[in-house]
Formats: sequence, structure tokens, C-alpha cells
Amino acid sequence: MTDLQIAQSVQEQHIRDIAAKLNISEENLEYYGNNKAKLPLSLINEDKVNSNNLILVTAITPTPAGEGKTTVSIGLGDGLNYIGKKAMTVLREPSLGPVFGIKGGAAGGGHSQVIPMVDINLHFTGDFPAIEKANNLLAALIDNNIQSKGRSLGIDPRTVLWKRCMDMNDRALRNIVAALGGKAGGVPNETGFNITAASEIMAILCLSKDFEDLQLKCGNIYVGDTFDGQPVYARDLNAQGAMAVLLREAIKPNLVQTLEGNPALIHGGPFANIAQGTNSILATKMGLSLSDYVVTEAGFGADLGAEKFLNIKCREAGFSPKTVVLVATIRALKYHGGKPLDELTNEDTAALKAGLPNLERHIESLKSFGIPVVVAVNAFGSDTEAEKELLINHCSSMGIPVAISNGWADGGKGCAELAEKVVEAVAGCKSTFRPTYNLEDTLLTKIEKICTNIYGASDVELSAKARRQLKRFEDLGYSKLPVCMAKTQKSLSDNDKLLGRPENFSIHIRELEIAAGAGFVIPIAGNMLRMPGLPATPASENITIDKDGNITGLF
Amino acid sequence: MTDLQIAQSVQEQHIRDIAAKLNISEENLEYYGNNKAKLPLSLINEDKVNSNNLILVTAITPTPAGEGKTTVSIGLGDGLNYIGKKAMTVLREPSLGPVFGIKGGAAGGGHSQVIPMVDINLHFTGDFPAIEKANNLLAALIDNNIQSKGRSLGIDPRTVLWKRCMDMNDRALRNIVAALGGKAGGVPNETGFNITAASEIMAILCLSKDFEDLQLKCGNIYVGDTFDGQPVYARDLNAQGAMAVLLREAIKPNLVQTLEGNPALIHGGPFANIAQGTNSILATKMGLSLSDYVVTEAGFGADLGAEKFLNIKCREAGFSPKTVVLVATIRALKYHGGKPLDELTNEDTAALKAGLPNLERHIESLKSFGIPVVVAVNAFGSDTEAEKELLINHCSSMGIPVAISNGWADGGKGCAELAEKVVEAVAGCKSTFRPTYNLEDTLLTKIEKICTNIYGASDVELSAKARRQLKRFEDLGYSKLPVCMAKTQKSLSDNDKLLGRPENFSIHIRELEIAAGAGFVIPIAGNMLRMPGLPATPASENITIDKDGNITGLF
Repeated sequence: MTDLQIAQSVQEQHIRDIAAKLNISEENLEYYGNNKAKLPLSLINEDKVNSNNLILVTAITPTPAGEGKTTVSIGLGDGLNYIGKKAMTVLREPSLGPVFGIKGGAAGGGHSQVIPMVDINLHFTGDFPAIEKANNLLAALIDNNIQSKGRSLGIDPRTVLWKRCMDMNDRALRNIVAALGGKAGGVPNETGFNITAASEIMAILCLSKDFEDLQLKCGNIYVGDTFDGQPVYARDLNAQGAMAVLLREAIKPNLVQTLEGNPALIHGGPFANIAQGTNSILATKMGLSLSDYVVTEAGFGADLGAEKFLNIKCREAGFSPKTVVLVATIRALKYHGGKPLDELTNEDTAALKAGLPNLERHIESLKSFGIPVVVAVNAFGSDTEAEKELLINHCSSMGIPVAISNGWADGGKGCAELAEKVVEAVAGCKSTFRPTYNLEDTLLTKIEKICTNIYGASDVELSAKARRQLKRFEDLGYSKLPVCMAKTQKSLSDNDKLLGRPENFSIHIRELEIAAGAGFVIPIAGNMLRMPGLPATPASENITIDKDGNITGLF
Repeated sequence: MTDLQIAQSVQEQHIRDIAAKLNISEENLEYYGNNKAKLPLSLINEDKVNSNNLILVTAITPTPAGEGKTTVSIGLGDGLNYIGKKAMTVLREPSLGPVFGIKGGAAGGGHSQVIPMVDINLHFTGDFPAIEKANNLLAALIDNNIQSKGRSLGIDPRTVLWKRCMDMNDRALRNIVAALGGKAGGVPNETGFNITAASEIMAILCLSKDFEDLQLKCGNIYVGDTFDGQPVYARDLNAQGAMAVLLREAIKPNLVQTLEGNPALIHGGPFANIAQGTNSILATKMGLSLSDYVVTEAGFGADLGAEKFLNIKCREAGFSPKTVVLVATIRALKYHGGKPLDELTNEDTAALKAGLPNLERHIESLKSFGIPVVVAVNAFGSDTEAEKELLINHCSSMGIPVAISNGWADGGKGCAELAEKVVEAVAGCKSTFRPTYNLEDTLLTKIEKICTNIYGASDVELSAKARRQLKRFEDLGYSKLPVCMAKTQKSLSDNDKLLGRPENFSIHIRELEIAAGAGFVIPIAGNMLRMPGLPATPASENITIDKDGNITGLF
């Protein structure tokens, strides 16, 4: 059965009944159909946020074999409910770009899914479009001010940093020249689009604490410079109010359900390679207000998602997870060990052993934060007993609790053992996490600490442009901000090809971007792009709708 | 009281109760909050579509004084209910572009409004964003195919007609060069964005009859030519399925309520100057399926909205309105008569008289369709008895029923007289409408008939480019399509400055666009642009949100 068929075989509950499990009354629900609802921010209870248990799910370096981090997150949430805990999974919203590109949906798989999966993967409750509108309104206001005679702020179009965004894999929008066509078309300028998941507005939405904070952060966006070299902020254009109004609904977390009828929140969707990679602070707070245990995930490998989750989001929100679950698969470890993609279903303990250093590196990184780590082995049918034994023994020898996660095949029941180990680890956690760097460190020191302590790099090389930008950002007073690395997810290094645990490599920072509203600096490593392209055969080509509105080919 | 304050002073009914008035059960509602719902297409009943009564509201040539067509439409719908008829208002969805530009919201005014007005004016139920995604997915697929080596269709990037779209007044996106940045960025090409309300996908959504028709029309979009000069359609890129899937929810009409608790549908929002200017065929059908009387509106003056409503939409859908209501205001007629904007509140029967030819021209045009016309004088506090008497007598002397519309001040009660006259006119209508041109006419003849018979032009002048394009579209087999003029709304001519009833003028067709999926040819008259800009002081600057999420400055 396909994921869609499994999802459709389950009797969906009315979202009113899911909310009732959380003691949320109907007047607090803003319905989007019968199976989705937005929750008002008034349901957040800071006491419960502080006392309940946050669990982060992260992964080894991703491979084409698939790791199933979302599947494990949902399975673990269901597993905790299965063993009698009150638990909730809090996830990011999928981006449409990849849905029509290569990878299809992002709502879990098998018997560990959130539903309605089609809606979640398409427009959902309209959060991404709202983010685009707020982002692109600011862009229009900037160009309009440059065009305007009487009310000009003197913005130098050559210095404008603000890009438009679109939730689409569209390489043609990466670099454009806009405002052509003569005087009526504006002042021509070089610009471009980022994918919405990488936009600063997405980051702001995910890091805002309330409506006022949202408006303030929008106003703080650094737009570019005047001809005199003075910085211009979005608030200088009076843009922040209209931007926040456009985000008024988008800022509210979305309630859905898992296939087992447990509540789940899905809110905010920054990518972890080119953005901060975690769902919203408000969704995490909402989860912690409504549940004893919150299982959340951060994108791609622990070098990206987990590092940013801890150093950016948790520091900003005052969260400290009680346990980090590191997802690995035997298939992916064999791939890191050098085995080709089409041979991963064959038993190969040597390849598995050769791939273990990638797992080790991530365990070491996570241990540096000073909180408990549990390894979840996401089971595949091709895993052999010898392979499983080798992996489990290896983790045990490192002193790391480990469990096989059978959520894909068996849902919550298949994750019961993992859930028990996580509960135990949570109970044993007595400390708050230790960040990788201090906010007082210079921007360069912060970058260096991430590269060496988390990626295992020997050093960092900055281009001349990056050095110049670093200086500019420091001069503007941004030296106390955290950094949000843009780096390939495919390797611990900035080179896609280096699998496993690369050693003796440098990280090359090509240029930097500033997200002054969201509150971080973005060093761009290697050849990372913040607007992807479509593959030669886009997944969209197989999608159709029939006369009754039924969809085929989406998953 | 502001419109927003009036709207907030009324106790909103749960949309479930509004639906109940139409005998729609709860399982047929897709809620968007408690006050909005999408309706399934299965509620459409073709027998009722054919037997119930369609009423079109249109207007004289709009002026900065404001005519209040939407206010009259809502007031008339409420008025029909007030006099005991089962009636429903069916409107277009507002575009965000103007909301942040000059004019604020578009959900009626005073005591004739549809609610929730803030939602309706912002993202509403996500239809516009879905249209953008479908539109922009096709653009990405085109550029991706040009970039792709193995699967290239040989599209010549210089011939691509398909533009991206965005619901934003952003002149900088009107003309761009995209796909820059070297080989990885694609093949550079000149392109641009239209505002979403002017996009072909908006037109397709509004003209589609069901999911299959939607998918078919998406596939028929004419994208550009190969290097060999062969036409390329969206179906050649297998784009139509994914596009239709993106529009799966957007195609369903949206149910809301008027301030008096009467049901209203709001669906589809093409502008009438640069697009076909009417709501969706499906919403009109839905209204006719659920109500004895459906009041709908078409954008701007009768030369634009009403002409397109009849010649494009009604012909395509097989509708024939039983009455057309022509909205005029004394203020606007005085403006047409040469009175300056800041003196319109002073009595001036001479100016009013001088402005009447504009009204006359629209009455003549509407009478050419062979269906009853009723004039609605949208009342303003500054109208004097002498002015009202003059206007009413003038209409009566032309044999046209006329009523003062007091919907702004008094809601449905204030439109009772208008409603009575409309019911009488509807009862007297025994014929179906007579189109301005036949589909068998050549494209040029169609353009000429509209310009002379509706605008009152003496002739039509085509640029060399327009003549070339006309030839190309005819060669491609599009000669039987209707035409959808892009012309200024501010004058019957193509020159903004010519108020009243211009005589002895030519219409200049600068160029043409083809909407092969929607099924019409777009001649662009004068200096019309299909992507507006923001004014020097955008309305967005005054908008703010407070800590509880309350909005100020939006209306």
C-alpha cells in the first residue's frame, strides 16, 4: 500500500474531537475544513511550557536512501501515547517546491503519518502564501520608494539586500533584473527570489513570540543602504504593520491528527540547510502547554537542524530539550560506508561498520550540548539481524541508549520501546543545554565554533566579500546575533561528495546575508543556493485530478 | 462610524446557520473559521440554474467620487430578501494589490457589506494564492524545460508568452530579465509578472465548469513557440494535472453573509479593465441553484464589466440575465459634467445635466443586449432634491425604471424600492440577451463591434505588432474566440482624460495577448498595463496590529 492508501484507509476523526482530547473547547478552534484548525495564542500557558518535556528528533547526515526523521517523530509521538503518556508531535509545514520537484510529500510515512496529508502538502491553511505576501509587499514598498520622488528615502538600488520569495523550485527567479521598461517601470536593479522556506519572513514567523513581537521584528528588517551609506530598515518604510497584518492568521499554530488519532501541530517550515530548520516557537510552546511530552524535529542532519534548533531557537525561546533522538538507518549508514544505492538491500556489515563514523560524529556533537542522546534505528524490511546487532552493540558500547523504531510498519506500537527509552532519558535529564557559542563571541568566532565543534572542520575560510560583509554587519551592531549557517545537508563538510565522517577539511564562506528582523546572520558555505531548481523530470508531471476532484500521482 | 465599525457592531451568525437558510447541511460545508465555508460543486443543480433569475449590477464610467456598485449589489440582495424574495448576492473576491495601494477594501460599505470584511480583503480562503501557484508552476516548468537537455521541447525562450503573476501592485515586476547568473541559472529571457487578478489562471478558474474542464483548460494554455515555429501548450509540459490539483479547493465557491444575515457567495476576482471582470461561472451557478434571485456584479463601468459579463461569461455558461441594474451617483455624474472633485457636495444641476450623456451612453449600450435595464441611484448625503428629481425624470423620460438606493445608510430596507422595480423588470423579461458580436466574426470585427457599439468609438487602429499578433492567433485557429478588451476604466475611450460621453475617437490597440486556456483574445488598448504600481503614499503605511491581533488602518 502507498502512504496515501494507508492514510485513506484510516477513519479520520473530526478535528473537534482531536481538540477535545486536549481540553480545547470548540469556540477556541478556527476550523479549516473538518480536519484542520488554527489555535489561538491565548492557549499558551508559560508555566506548562517551562515544566513539560521537550524532545528533539534529529538525524545522521541524510542520503538518497532516506532516513525517515518525520516518520520516527510521528511514530515516537504515537508511541508515547501508546505507553500511556500524554504526548504530541510538533512538526514543520512542507514546502510546495520539493512536492513538485523530486521528493513528494513530507507528512511521515506508512503507519506513522499526519493527516490530511494532501492538504498538508499543498496549501494547508495558507501560511506559506501569507509569508510570501508579507515578504513581497516589503519588496514592492522598497522599489516604490526608490521610484517615488517626493517621499524618497534615498535608497541606493545597488545596495538593496531584500529579495522577493516564492514557494516554488524556480531557478529562473534566482537572479533577475527587475524594474525594466523605462521610467514607468521603476529604477532597474539586480535582485532575485529565495524559496519561501528560506525567506526571512519565514524565520520571523517561527521566532516571534506574539503579534507585537512579530510586528517589531518585521520593522527591524535591514533592507539596504541610502546613497549616503546609512542603513534602511523596513520600519523606515512603515512596512511592519501591514506585514504583521498579513501574517495575523499565519502566526497561529495548526492542529491536525496522526493516523492513530493523536493530536499534532504543524507550523512554520524553514529548510534546515538554507534557513533555521525548525518549526515555530509558538507551536512548540503550544505543544508544551497542551501535552506532557512534545516531540519535535529539526531538518536534515544534526549538524544543521539540531545545531540551529539549540543555538538559535532554544536560546531565543528559553527552551531546553530533555532528550535528543538521533535517527539512523542501516541503509543510510551502509551508503555512508561506501555501498552503492542499488545494493543497499543486501546485507553488508563491513559497509555498515565503515559508515558508523558518521553516526559517531553526530553523537559527539549532540553530547557537546550536555543533554541525553537516544539513537532510533528506523527499521527497513531489508535490515538483517546481524546488521541490527552490530549497530545496537556499537551504540551501547558508546553508552548511548538505542531502540529499533518500527513506526512505519506498526505505528505507535512499533515505537513503544523507543518511547520507553526516551521517557527514561527525559527523567534522567537534570541540566539545561550548553550552547556551542556565546552570543558575546564575535561573528567569526561563532562561525568557527560551529564549523570545528559540530562539523569537525579544521578551519574556516572566508572570501573577501564575506569578510567585507562581516565587517559591515559588525559595524551596524549585529555582532551579538547568532549565526544560521547555509551549508549542504549531504555532507558534514561543504562538499556534497564527502560522505561518512570527513576529516581535515575547511569550510568556505562565500558570502553572508543578514536577517536583522529574525535576528541572525547567514554565512553561506560552498555553493549553496537559496532558490532551488526543478529536476529534469519534475514530479509534477505525473499528477492528475479526476472529475470528482480525486488526486493521483501526488505521492 | 467607519465601515469596519459598522461591520463589527453586527452580531455575526455562524456560517452553519447561514448555510441552513439555503438548506445546506453541515456535512456539505468546508469551514474556514466560523464565518466562511467552501461549498462542494455537487450542490449545483442545472435545472434551477436555468429556471432562476440572474440580475447583473453594473455602473456608469467610474470616477474618483465613487459609485458604490458593490454596496448597491449587496443592498439589492438584502432588499430582495427584505421584500420577501429568496435572494443571494454573488460577488468577486477583492485583490490584495489595491488594498495596499490606494483604495482599501472591496466588501461593500455602510450597512450593505459582506462579512468577515477583514478576511475577505486579505487572504480569504486562499483562492488567490492557489491561482498564483498554478500560474507560477507552469512558468517554472517552461524555464525548466528550456534548461533541460535530455527532455527539451525546443522552446524558443524569445517566444514565451507565459508570465508569472503576483497579487501585489509591484511595478518593478512588470518587465524583468530572468534566469541570469550563468549556466546554472537557466537561459536568460525577458518576461514579467501580471497581477493575479489579470492572470489567465484567474480567468480559467472563473470560466471552468468542473474539475475536468479546469484541467483541460490548463492544458490548452498557449505557452510560446519552438525554434521551428510550432506552438507549445501547457499540456506538452504535462503541467495541467498539477495545476488543476493546486486549484482543487480554489474552484469551490465561498459562502459568507451580509450584515443582515443573508447568504452571499464570493468567488473569483478578475479585474474588469485588464481581465474579464466577473466572478466565476460556478459561483453564479451555485447561487442560482440555491436562490430564486441572484444579484451579481461585473467590474468598473458597463463598457467593461457588463460587456464582458454578457459576451464572454454568459455566452460560455449559457446564462441570460433577466435585468441589468446600472448604478449611477449624482456626485459622479457631476464629475462627468466637469465639476471638480472637491466641489461635488455642492448642488449643481447644470453639471449633473452635463454629465448625463455618460449615463445615456451606458443605457444605450445595455439596451443593445435586448434585456431590461433599471437605474439605481446610489444615494449620498450631499444629493439634493432638485438633483434627484432631475436624474429621476431624465431616466423616466428615457423609459428606464429608476430608484434611489439607500443601502449604505439603511441596508436592505433602503433598497426595497429598487428591489421592487427589479422584480418587476425581471418578471417582464421574456428574451435572452443578444450578444454584441458573433463568434463567427473575425477577431478584428469583434474588436470593432465592441469599440463602436459599446464604447461609441468611430474606429479602431491596430499597431503593426497587434496586426501581426492577430494574424498569428488566427493562423493558430483562435479566430472563433471571444475578445476580452484591456482598456482604461476611467473613460469610454482609451484616454483616461475623456470623461462624460466622448465622441469621434479611435481605439488604439497596442498589442494582443492570448488566453487560449481560458478561451479569449486580449486586445490591449492605449497604455493599459496588466501589473499596476503602488501610489507615492501606499495605504499599507497606516496599517498596524496590536498585541491582541486587532487591526487598525485597513479601512
